[in-house]
Amino acid sequence: MATILKGKPVADAINEKTRQMVQECLQKGIEPTLAILRVGEREDDLSYERGAMKRAEAVGVSVKNVILPADVEEERLFGTIRELNDDPKVHGILMFRPLPKYIDGEKARNMLCPKKDVDGCTDGSLSGVFTNTDTGFAPCTAQAAVEILKYYGIEISGKRTVVMGRSLVIGRPVAMLLMHENATITICHRKTKDMPGIARNAEILVSAIGEMENIGREYLSPNQVVIDVGIGWNEEKQKLCGDVCFEEAEGIVQAITPVPGGVGSVTTSILMQHTVFAAMALSNGQH
Amino acid sequence: MATILKGKPVADAINEKTRQMVQECLQKGIEPTLAILRVGEREDDLSYERGAMKRAEAVGVSVKNVILPADVEEERLFGTIRELNDDPKVHGILMFRPLPKYIDGEKARNMLCPKKDVDGCTDGSLSGVFTNTDTGFAPCTAQAAVEILKYYGIEISGKRTVVMGRSLVIGRPVAMLLMHENATITICHRKTKDMPGIARNAEILVSAIGEMENIGREYLSPNQVVIDVGIGWNEEKQKLCGDVCFEEAEGIVQAITPVPGGVGSVTTSILMQHTVFAAMALSNGQH
Repeated sequence: MATILKGKPVADAINEKTRQMVQECLQKGIEPTLAILRVGEREDDLSYERGAMKRAEAVGVSVKNVILPADVEEERLFGTIRELNDDPKVHGILMFRPLPKYIDGEKARNMLCPKKDVDGCTDGSLSGVFTNTDTGFAPCTAQAAVEILKYYGIEISGKRTVVMGRSLVIGRPVAMLLMHENATITICHRKTKDMPGIARNAEILVSAIGEMENIGREYLSPNQVVIDVGIGWNEEKQKLCGDVCFEEAEGIVQAITPVPGGVGSVTTSILMQHTVFAAMALSNGQH
Repeated sequence: MATILKGKPVADAINEKTRQMVQECLQKGIEPTLAILRVGEREDDLSYERGAMKRAEAVGVSVKNVILPADVEEERLFGTIRELNDDPKVHGILMFRPLPKYIDGEKARNMLCPKKDVDGCTDGSLSGVFTNTDTGFAPCTAQAAVEILKYYGIEISGKRTVVMGRSLVIGRPVAMLLMHENATITICHRKTKDMPGIARNAEILVSAIGEMENIGREYLSPNQVVIDVGIGWNEEKQKLCGDVCFEEAEGIVQAITPVPGGVGSVTTSILMQHTVFAAMALSNGQH
């Protein structure tokens, strides 16, 4: 049976370090603060927000909730972003997306100050991920996937690593992060021919296709480590499921992250870590 | 015997379009102008400069040569970049690199205005390549590789495509450009295990490792299209050579770009095309 790569111990280890850094900040009079900017009341956003606030409290990061009505005027949202960028007491900004359709989401996204872009959504952050420099921050979920591999001592360097999915939120950045760790990366997507064959040949397989339980035995092989980034609600089974058909994978692969309790449970820990890094960097810059 | 994918007809086709666009610009009173910024007299730079100037003249792009002494003060270089950024008569800037070691090359690189970054070296341009948006321009050599495939009608979509080399100048950007054309891309590098085996399995193989004639039959297979981005002077043979051992490849693969006369001969055509695009975009923005 596969080893289950649970997210909790990974998150715990990150949180412990974050807590210490928060203490160091507080001693210097810096109160690491994450602004959570939400437009409207989407259930997904509210759910993530609850998780983030709980995590923030646990590690000692302050949260500034900024909530705008679902029909907020574009200019008011932009103004709010500018205020948060300029506010020296705010170190990180998490802005929920997608924004309402009448708002220029691309403009809003790139209006965020990369130094406060702790969720890694701006072009600045993405160029940092691509060029392997410390501009901005990596998207939290992409980094969470890498942190799980590292925590469990799974060697990345030189490994045949296949990423399924090429989104800017997860597929492309996680591929780049793994390449910076010296993995040999292959990126698959809907135009890929024989994705199962390519996936089967992977030593590390990252699934970020967002199709529930679609990755079955034809994608899997023994000695494989599987990181399942997908998450969705399975109406039929009345439970959360990932991209991978867990029951099938369990009997085949060497190790796999569960859903829930895998990658998703590390994401907010990364968000808090980024916020504290931002607080430290910004306060160094200001002194 | 392999089909030889010569660069000249590709360059000719691009130049023809560029020439037409230059005429349209001139009719509107816009004189597309490329500034070539060179520090010192490095032979590589001088050689590329001669090629670029010849190409510019052929398509009707004006060139503004800006030459600074090899021991230029950092602040003078930065001032020159700022002037070129601000000069409404300059539409594209090619800055030769590497710069002298005492100069902060990273700062200089990112000081270039992305809208004038026709050689695709700034973080802005690289983020555009990563995110597939029209921020800045793709690095010319990376785009030249893709243009050759397109010109010769070689299907990219769905193809197993292996890029050897992960530099920011060519490996990573060409992989991204090919992925945006729906190739399934694998990026290999010095930490990759069994690079020959991975390369052999490619339908399109792009070599950008910069090791002369190092890619022999163990990397190659029939039905393979090989794009050789490498170029270097072979002392022994007294001629220019690519990464690929051409004599071996010729008898094995389906098609291959020669060196010289392949990718390199398309690069300056792309540079001129970018300059004209920049002229059009900048003048639209100004009117």
